[in-house]
Parts: sequence; C-alpha cells; structure tokens
Amino acid sequence: MKALSVAVIGCGWAGARHARAFADQGATVSWAIDLDATRAGTVAKLQVGTRISADYREALADPNLTAVDICLTHDLHAPIAIEAARHGKHILCEKPIAATLAEADSMIEAAAKAGVVLMVAENEIFSPLYRRVRDLVAAGAIGKPALVQMVRGCYLEDSFKKERPWFLDERAAAGGMMMSGGVHDFEKLRMIVGEVTAVSARRAPQRFTDMQGDDTSIAMLRFANGAVGLMVQSFLMKNALTASGTEEHTLRIEGERGSIRAAGTSGGRIVLFSDNRADPLLSGTACETEIIVPEVDTFGLEVEHFITCVRDGGEPITTGRSMRRPLELVLAAYESMRTNREVELPLA
Amino acid sequence: MKALSVAVIGCGWAGARHARAFADQGATVSWAIDLDATRAGTVAKLQVGTRISADYREALADPNLTAVDICLTHDLHAPIAIEAARHGKHILCEKPIAATLAEADSMIEAAAKAGVVLMVAENEIFSPLYRRVRDLVAAGAIGKPALVQMVRGCYLEDSFKKERPWFLDERAAAGGMMMSGGVHDFEKLRMIVGEVTAVSARRAPQRFTDMQGDDTSIAMLRFANGAVGLMVQSFLMKNALTASGTEEHTLRIEGERGSIRAAGTSGGRIVLFSDNRADPLLSGTACETEIIVPEVDTFGLEVEHFITCVRDGGEPITTGRSMRRPLELVLAAYESMRTNREVELPLA
Amino acid sequence: MKALSVAVIGCGWAGARHARAFADQGATVSWAIDLDATRAGTVAKLQVGTRISADYREALADPNLTAVDICLTHDLHAPIAIEAARHGKHILCEKPIAATLAEADSMIEAAAKAGVVLMVAENEIFSPLYRRVRDLVAAGAIGKPALVQMVRGCYLEDSFKKERPWFLDERAAAGGMMMSGGVHDFEKLRMIVGEVTAVSARRAPQRFTDMQGDDTSIAMLRFANGAVGLMVQSFLMKNALTASGTEEHTLRIEGERGSIRAAGTSGGRIVLFSDNRADPLLSGTACETEIIVPEVDTFGLEVEHFITCVRDGGEPITTGRSMRRPLELVLAAYESMRTNREVELPLA
Amino acid sequence: MKALSVAVIGCGWAGARHARAFADQGATVSWAIDLDATRAGTVAKLQVGTRISADYREALADPNLTAVDICLTHDLHAPIAIEAARHGKHILCEKPIAATLAEADSMIEAAAKAGVVLMVAENEIFSPLYRRVRDLVAAGAIGKPALVQMVRGCYLEDSFKKERPWFLDERAAAGGMMMSGGVHDFEKLRMIVGEVTAVSARRAPQRFTDMQGDDTSIAMLRFANGAVGLMVQSFLMKNALTASGTEEHTLRIEGERGSIRAAGTSGGRIVLFSDNRADPLLSGTACETEIIVPEVDTFGLEVEHFITCVRDGGEPITTGRSMRRPLELVLAAYESMRTNREVELPLA
Repeated sequence: MKALSVAVIGCGWAGARHARAFADQGATVSWAIDLDATRAGTVAKLQVGTRISADYREALADPNLTAVDICLTHDLHAPIAIEAARHGKHILCEKPIAATLAEADSMIEAAAKAGVVLMVAENEIFSPLYRRVRDLVAAGAIGKPALVQMVRGCYLEDSFKKERPWFLDERAAAGGMMMSGGVHDFEKLRMIVGEVTAVSARRAPQRFTDMQGDDTSIAMLRFANGAVGLMVQSFLMKNALTASGTEEHTLRIEGERGSIRAAGTSGGRIVLFSDNRADPLLSGTACETEIIVPEVDTFGLEVEHFITCVRDGGEPITTGRSMRRPLELVLAAYESMRTNREVELPLA
Repeated sequence: MKALSVAVIGCGWAGARHARAFADQGATVSWAIDLDATRAGTVAKLQVGTRISADYREALADPNLTAVDICLTHDLHAPIAIEAARHGKHILCEKPIAATLAEADSMIEAAAKAGVVLMVAENEIFSPLYRRVRDLVAAGAIGKPALVQMVRGCYLEDSFKKERPWFLDERAAAGGMMMSGGVHDFEKLRMIVGEVTAVSARRAPQRFTDMQGDDTSIAMLRFANGAVGLMVQSFLMKNALTASGTEEHTLRIEGERGSIRAAGTSGGRIVLFSDNRADPLLSGTACETEIIVPEVDTFGLEVEHFITCVRDGGEPITTGRSMRRPLELVLAAYESMRTNREVELPLA
Repeated sequence: MKALSVAVIGCGWAGARHARAFADQGATVSWAIDLDATRAGTVAKLQVGTRISADYREALADPNLTAVDICLTHDLHAPIAIEAARHGKHILCEKPIAATLAEADSMIEAAAKAGVVLMVAENEIFSPLYRRVRDLVAAGAIGKPALVQMVRGCYLEDSFKKERPWFLDERAAAGGMMMSGGVHDFEKLRMIVGEVTAVSARRAPQRFTDMQGDDTSIAMLRFANGAVGLMVQSFLMKNALTASGTEEHTLRIEGERGSIRAAGTSGGRIVLFSDNRADPLLSGTACETEIIVPEVDTFGLEVEHFITCVRDGGEPITTGRSMRRPLELVLAAYESMRTNREVELPLA
Repeated sequence: MKALSVAVIGCGWAGARHARAFADQGATVSWAIDLDATRAGTVAKLQVGTRISADYREALADPNLTAVDICLTHDLHAPIAIEAARHGKHILCEKPIAATLAEADSMIEAAAKAGVVLMVAENEIFSPLYRRVRDLVAAGAIGKPALVQMVRGCYLEDSFKKERPWFLDERAAAGGMMMSGGVHDFEKLRMIVGEVTAVSARRAPQRFTDMQGDDTSIAMLRFANGAVGLMVQSFLMKNALTASGTEEHTLRIEGERGSIRAAGTSGGRIVLFSDNRADPLLSGTACETEIIVPEVDTFGLEVEHFITCVRDGGEPITTGRSMRRPLELVLAAYESMRTNREVELPLA
C-alpha cells in the first residue's frame, strides 16, 4: 500500500509533533511549510526528500499530495482548509476547528462538497486517561453525574511566550486561555458527562499584560442531563507542579453513588470511590481505588486515526461537525464574560 | 469577678458544644432549654445547678441571667433573639444570623436599642487555619488575589439526618447546603479575599429526596477587588475522607505572585507557593512550603470571645451587622438559582 | 451485676486514660494512687467516691477491690503486680510487661498461682487499622510476606519531657525508644507477619543528651516464615506531621502477589495493591485501593476486654505469657546494639 | 577541535543510551560492537559511518579510536577494560566497576600504567536531585545526619527479563539486586552522608525463581560519622507507581536539626523540614518545604563529563579508584547475607 503523502503547514510546536507522528506511522511528510525556514528545516530533517516552502499553495499544487495538516494560528485554519478541500486534499486541522462558527461551517461544507476527510486534531480525546474515566462513568461506577469540576492550569513562562508568540495576540489565538484550553475541556466534558446546554463565564483580572486574551477565566455550566459544573482555565497557576513545567489538568465528578477524580493529560491517575465494589476483601469498608494510566503519545494516536480514516474512508471521531460544538461553547463563554449573563446553547 | 450566667436555648449538636465551652471557660450554664428533655438533661449534667425547661421564657424571666445562647433552627433565631434583647440579655446566636434580611435587621435594631451584645457564632472565622491564610495573603505572600476556589463537601449519612432532622426541612434550615455551608464560606472569603459584589449560582440535581433544600449547589463570584471565584457546597461528596466522617474543606487562591491552598476546618495544612522566598538555602528553586496548623476547638474560641465582649463591653468580631452580609450573599445565591441570572450586591 | 472495682496505680498520662476508660465502661475506680496528689486528684474527679492515696498497699488491702491497673514506670511493674496477685487482685499492667524476663516470669507465675487475670495493656493490638492489615494479609491479599518495613517516629518536645520525665531515665524506662516503641511494634509484627527469630540492631548517635536511653535506634529482623524486616524507632523525626504533635507510624509489607501499606495508630489509612481483584470494573488495570479506617479509642477497647475477661473468666488476647515475647525481642535488640552481632531468639 | 572517536561495546539498554548521548555531545560513535547484529545495527543508525562488529578487538585495533564505552555484563568489564588500556584507549565503563575487587584493582592499575582515563558510568551521581540533597545537607540544613533510610524498588516484569536476560544470571550480573541497585545507592550515600564502615545484610525469600541472584535484600549500615542507616533493594515492589513502570527511589535522612526526604531518580521532589528558616513569613510555624527538581538526562551528563575529562586531561568524579568502594560495600553485604554477621570495611 502506498504511503500517505502529507504536507505539514505550520512547523511550530504542534506541527513538529504531528510531523514526527506521521513519520513514525509510515506516512511521507512531503512538504514542510513555514514562513520561518529554520522551523520548516527542522521538520524536513525527519525524513529524506521532504520539500521546504514558505507558501502552502506549492504543496496544494502537488498532485501526489494526499493530505494537509494545518498547524497554524487559529484565524488561518478556515481559509487554508477550504482551499485544501478545493484541491481535493484530506484535512487534519489543529484545534479549535476555526475562529468563528461561520468559518467552521464553511470548512465543513467545503470538505463535504469535496468528499475529503476533515478531522480536528483534538488530541486529548485520545487520552487513555479520559477514555477510562468515560468508560467508568458509562459503566455506572458512580451513578448519574451531578457535579463536575474541571481545572486546567499552568504558568505563562517567558519561554512559552517566545516559543508561541502568536498566543499573546487575541486575533491570531481567537481569544485566550478559554479558547486554547477550554476547547479541549469542553470536548472532554461532552465525551464523559454529556452535552452542555448553558454557560456562564467570568474573566479574572489580567496578570500578563503582554497577553491580549484572557490569561485566567472561569465558567459555570449546566448539562443536558441536569448536572452542573465548574471550569477553570488559568495561565496563572504557579505551584511546584507547574513550576517544573507540567500542566495541571484535573477532573472531578460527584455522582449519585460515588465519585471519580482524574489528574493528568495523556496519562495519569484516577481515584474512584464507588459503591459497586465486588471484591469480597474490601466489602464493608470505606475505600478508594487509585488507577494508574501510563502515559501515551496522544499526538501519535490522533495521527494514526487520521491515516486510518483517509485510507479506509471512515469518519473520524473528531469530525469538523462534532468539533464545531466545543468552539460554540467557548464562544458562549466569551459572550458571557462580556455580558455577565448566562448564555444558552445553541448560539443564535 | 462574678461568672457569666447563660441560658443555652437549643441543646442539640451545636448547643451541647457551646454549653461545654461555656463550662470550660468558667461561665455558669444556668438554663438548658429544649423541647426534648433528654437533650436538655445531657447539657444540664455538665454543671451542678443547671435548670431544665422546655420554655425559654422561663430563662428570660430569670433576673440573674446575663446572656442567651441561641442554637435553634434558623427560622427561630430572630424571634427569640429579639425577645432576649427586650429582656436585656446579651445574645450569642448560631449562624446564619437569621432566615431573612428583615429578620436580621430587626435583631440588630433590637440589640442596639437594648444595649446588649449581639454576636453571631461563626466559629470558622476563629479557625487558626483560615486566619493564617488571611495573614499570609495580607502580607503579600501571593500578591493580589485573582482566582479563588472554595469547596465544602461531605456525605449526607443517615446518622446525620437522625441527629439533625430539621436540616431536611427547608423552612427550618432557611435553605439547604448553600445556607448552612455557604454562610460559613462567604464569610471566610470576605475575611481573606475581600467583599463579594456579584453571585451566580446553580443547583445540582437533587440526590437526597428526603431533603427539601439544595443538597448540592455551586456559585461563581465576583469580588470588589476584581478577583473571581468558584464555590462548591455539596452533601454528595463521597470519598475516602468524607466516608470516614471528615468534611472536606478546601480553599485555593491564585495570586499574581504565587498561590496558596488550605485544607481543613479548625486546623489543617497550608501549601504556599511564593516568590517572596527569603531563605538563601532555597533561592533559585521551584518550591512549595507546607504549613501545618494544629487543630483547635473553634467553639471554645468563639465562646471565649463572647464572654470577653460581654464582660469588657467590646464589639465582637462577628457582630450582627457584619454577619448580615454572608446571609445576604447566600440569599443572592438562592435568587440566582431561581433565575439563572447573576445577582449583584447589595440586594434591593 | 456488680461493677468491677479497680485501683489505678500511677495517675500519669496512661493512668488517666485508663481511668476514664474504666469509668466509661461502668467500672468503679475505687482508688487513685500516685505519689503526686494533684495527679491522683485529677483521676479521682472522674467519679464520686474515688479514694486518693500515695501508697498502693492501701488499695491492695481493700477487700472490695477486684483489680489493679498498673501504670507506673517500667521497673515497678513486676514488684507491684506480684504483690497484687498475692492479694488476689486481677491485674491490668501497662506495656512492656516488665523490665526483665526474670521479672516477667515471676509475674506470670504469681498470677497463675493466684488464679488471677494478668493482662498487658498493649493497646495497639486493639487498633482496627492493624487488625485490618492482619486480616488482609491472612486472607492472602498480598500472598506470602517477604519484606517488612516498620517506622515509628516523633520528636521529643520539651513538653513531653515535662509530662513524662521518667522516660529520660534509662532504669525507670528499662531502655529508650526501642523499649517504649519497639515493644508495641514487635507485637504488631508478630500479629501480622509471624514470629521473629533473629534481631540485629544499632543505635544512632544520641541527639537528646538529657535522655539516657536510645533516642533513635534501628533493627533488622528475620521471621520464622523467611521474611526479612527493617524497623525504625526514633524520637528524632521532625517533619510537618510530627511537629504538629502526631506520631508517625507506618508499616509496609511486600508480598509475593502484592503489597500493603498502613499509616496511623488507632485508625488511619491502608493502601493495598493486590492481584486478587474481583471487581470487573477494575480488571486489567494497575491499581491501588485506599482503605480508610476511622479512629477509635484503643484504650477503651483494651479496658473493655480486660473487664470482660475478669467477669467471664476468659483469657486475654494479651496475656502475660504472650507479652513476654515482645519484651524478649526488645532485649535482644539491646544486646545486638551492645555487640554489633545478630541475636537469635529465644534468649539464652 | 577533533571529535572524540568512541567504540560502544555492548549495545543493549545502557549502550544504546550512551551511544545517543555521545552522538548528542558531538562525539563520533565509530564502532557499535555486539554479538547481536540487530542491536549493534540500531546503535549504528544514529550516525553515518558507524561500523558494526561482533568482535571488540576490531575496534581496539582502530588507530583513530580514542575511547571505549563498556556496557557489557558485569563479569566482562575487567578483561575488556584492561585490554583497552593496553591499546591506549580511554575507558568509560558501566557500573559496577567489576565483579570482584581483584578485577577492579587490575583495571585501575592497567589504566594508570597506560595513562588513560578510567571512568565508571555511575549516572545517579550526576542526578541534580541527589546533588541538591547533598548540597542541602552540606549546608547544614538538617544538622548532623543521624538516621538514613534508602529504598530502591521495582517489579521484575517479564518484559524486563526479555530485554536484559543476563540479569537473571548470577555470574554475569555478579549478584542480584544488591549488586545492580545497591552499587548506585551506596555511592549516593557516600556522596551525601559520608563513608560507610560496616554492613549487615539479609536476603528475602526468593520470589522470582528464574533469577539466581537476590531479588530482594536489605542492609543495615554504620557510617564513619556515627550515623546509622537502612537500605532496601527489591524487585518485588508492586504498587501503582512501579506497576506503571517507574522505579521507586527514596531517601530519607533525619538530622539533629531537621529532616530531608527525596523521591526520584534523575529528577523528582525533595521535602525539607529545617529549623534554619530565614523567611519571616514562615517564622514560628511548623512547616515543610517541597522542592521540585526537573528531570534531566543523567546519561548525557556523565558522557559529557567523560568527554571533558578525556579532552582536558582532568580526573573524573567517578574514577575507578573511588568507584571501587561501592563495589566493596556490595561485596560486604553479600558476605553478611552468607554469614548473618556484620562485615566491617575495608574487606580483608
């Protein structure tokens, strides 16, 4: 079988990881596109024969190219994805799908019309940690969820700003932490707890004045199944963990018959308190179970899934259509920050 | 000096603790008032000479009585406090001050007119754990607070329901968890972070159908100084800690220069991450400091403070006037639960 | 049924706790014996009618007295217990049973001859935490034990020295930490893991020069079943836990099919890693179970057991004969500290 | 400057890591020597021009070769190192230096005679975690050390056995866990606490019958400065941490003025309890400081140090002479396991 030929468009932090994953999966990274020739060159070194360019149109004109992998700033996802679809190229696009719902709709339409795969690279959905949480909740381990708490925190170090300066630009990032982090977390909540129907959000006083978007914001949620939730998105969390460079990702759900807590990103630990205990050694005891989920490379998993979908013609787990919703939830949160009112879904 | 003579009105869980504290502080518990003679009897056994009655009016008519300690259901605080004031008795009243703002105002007015002390028994304000957090924040250990998270959780065991059945009655309890727990936490937040200016709140699906008030509710807050906050009040938190009978109380604050976390009630641990590190051994290192605050009897501290105020004529830390505000915040939260809208303070 | 009449001989820290337990269990504390009248007086206040004396012989001469509770320094256990037996009084004696094996043998013989109960007040054997560990190990949760680690640590604060000054006197305490702490731990190890057959021990450099016995010592053990073990007994452990006044007690066992860890004294937490997992929710997962064992009053439990044995004529769990062995193990440890050689049991 | 030309002799787990480190540091891996051509091939792929051979003599005969890196089973260290010295090649040799003291002495002598660098690849000495512990202890953070506890544990998974089958062979491994793990830990203890003067050790009942050497053993130590210590070396530690593939490495030291605990290998966390607290925010408080030391590649650091020593003619931190001592301590432990007696250093 012929190897999939892909152009990595945008060779920054995410693009470099995707490129490595494509190479590891046996795909051919035919093009490394970046305005910065050094960054494109670094990606090109992974395989023999990768061409470098500053203009993605060169790659789209390549008749042997099967797919594009868009790892650009959020405002550029839609225009380039639409153009790629018109050239008949399959599309893997970094999260969020786009900067606006109108852009997302155009992308979805263009891909449908061209008959190409449009997959959003929402890597955290592939995390075995959160899939295990989903499985436990779905198996009834804690009963019906009632209260959800989700926290994403890190500290905005200068090194991060240097590596991803576009992040400080509200237009390029289509917002701040609620966009970049929240879009992950809303989708994980949808996977684990169910649909979110209303969002209230507030923005903390800005700590980092060189960042235009929110560096810390919070949200209060209502779910279709009646559960309520709280969410924190913060670049201001300075503690021993984050100071050593690890993001703090925690999820906690109280259900009618138990509780579950998870900490980690692409692996980590789950603490389950469940009444469903079948082990006779533990009967009649107040006890918790700690489950360790080893780290995996979620970028590898999502790229592998994309390759499979392109090859076999299947629909991705994270289609454009399904990934429109977490964007919509983030936009609802921003509207609530502006108005101090709850915003119900879907957006008008 | 003559010992203070006090009538404990309501000899349930809180009344019994107060009575013991009065006895330990050298006061005379002259009356143990309860409709349930067994409970009154238990309190009366602490000292020789304590009289038992089902009617608090007997105690108010005692000319030697200096003070009353009201430990009744929340709806009875105001009528009895007002009557006590009219009899010239000093008043220690369990939290919340009353069930409504109008009631609280009447109590405050009656006490002022009679020239008696009106102190609300908000014991958690006396906790050395939260006072230490306040001191650290005030000393600038984390810089200006930006994001606050507060969680109060336990599991509503059958034994609790039996011991305090009025808790299940929305009228007697003047609400549910947001009233009983939130009134503590709003006051702690005011002490540590500053005034709260707006409250949004939501109620989780009810787990305990024999309880009328909210068994779990959450709130999103705005503070006068710009900080934002999240609060959880839940009777549904079942984990190894709560299953062994300990409430989970946590507070977490992110500031512009560090973070602080506290866990515990009348003692516990603080984890401080601060840039203000003066110790040369630790310079240039990402590090956290864990501070252990030994447990104290906060009921003893508040009763001691009340006795001092009565004896020396000073104003309590927790006057009726200052404790009106946490009640107002709880009522704002309930209004928000009804309307799904943010409620600004002060209430109209 | 007539209440058991007991004389508490030695009204210090342990005597006061025992006295309260006897009172709570419905026994009559007829005598409070102490050279220090204040301490005897404090114990006497618990019940109406308790007589105070500095001379235990007065109590032994009381024909209505059923039992004595010896809470004196370790060197006085034997002479008074033997005299009590001769007067036909049942005996509860604080741990260790005596200062020497010869003394212990004389006590056991005297009690047998007089037909009275001789129970050693080894309260930690009554801890539900360590009983649960024993049950889990006995049920095969970790397979055959192979490696055991036990740590007992606290910090020798000045307040402790003031409260129990005899502890600093090597003769009165019959040693140092290895005697006072080790005698508890050897018995717990025997209960959970099995008989100890050889002891090697070393003493750390002395930190507290006002203490004559070892303030820190360690031991390496061999068990009859082949397992090996390490033990730490230290008054030098200064950390956040011990600085807040809590002793650090941990036990850790590696078995052929799993591991178990326990932390706490009269309650605490167990972490079990076991292959015997029956719960289908958890199959195929690396996971640990945390079991919370609520605190109980182990002094109450041992006193209750003693009363039952006296009343019903049963044999105590902690007879003089069985409690001779942990003393022998401690003495073996001291011999090893002197010689730097392993000492095998039984002692010659 | 000309790049150092090195032959990696033994291309298993350690050899592959060393080879990568040499390549990263700009050295030339000229030879990849292994009886298994596949493994040699994997190492050879790292750079262009690396030659493969099953016979290390080919490499020694290469006049352009500057150094050898010996990553073979422990029994082969000495014969090949001696031959390399005779060919004038500098030597980096995996730990332990050799299987016996006589072998180590011959290696040291041969290297001295040939005037070549002999460095033992004791990577854990380069760990910033343990260097930080050493610095804190040396700075007097806990006062004079009195009690030391060190634990190394993991679980012997089948995958490990497959990857390193020689480990199961007592002759090739020159022992079991006490050799492979203990040799690391004795050297860390020497660096942090000081010289060890006497060792008593015991072996646990064997769990893994396909392994000839000890799968679990323990030791009790005396240090030259009077401190005493306990050590655990175990392949039998199955818990949530080790089940996810992470070794458990902990060190705990009680000193006369504080305590320090460390967990981790090439990075991790330190918890310091110290009276030397200079920070006024924390005065008068029982508190601990947690220090996070980010992970580094200790293989890279040791290889970098070797290259520097070869280039500049300096003496390595881990010379053959100094690394003879941890081997001697391990051999003392094995002698003690055989005799059940304490073994004093130096060995006769």
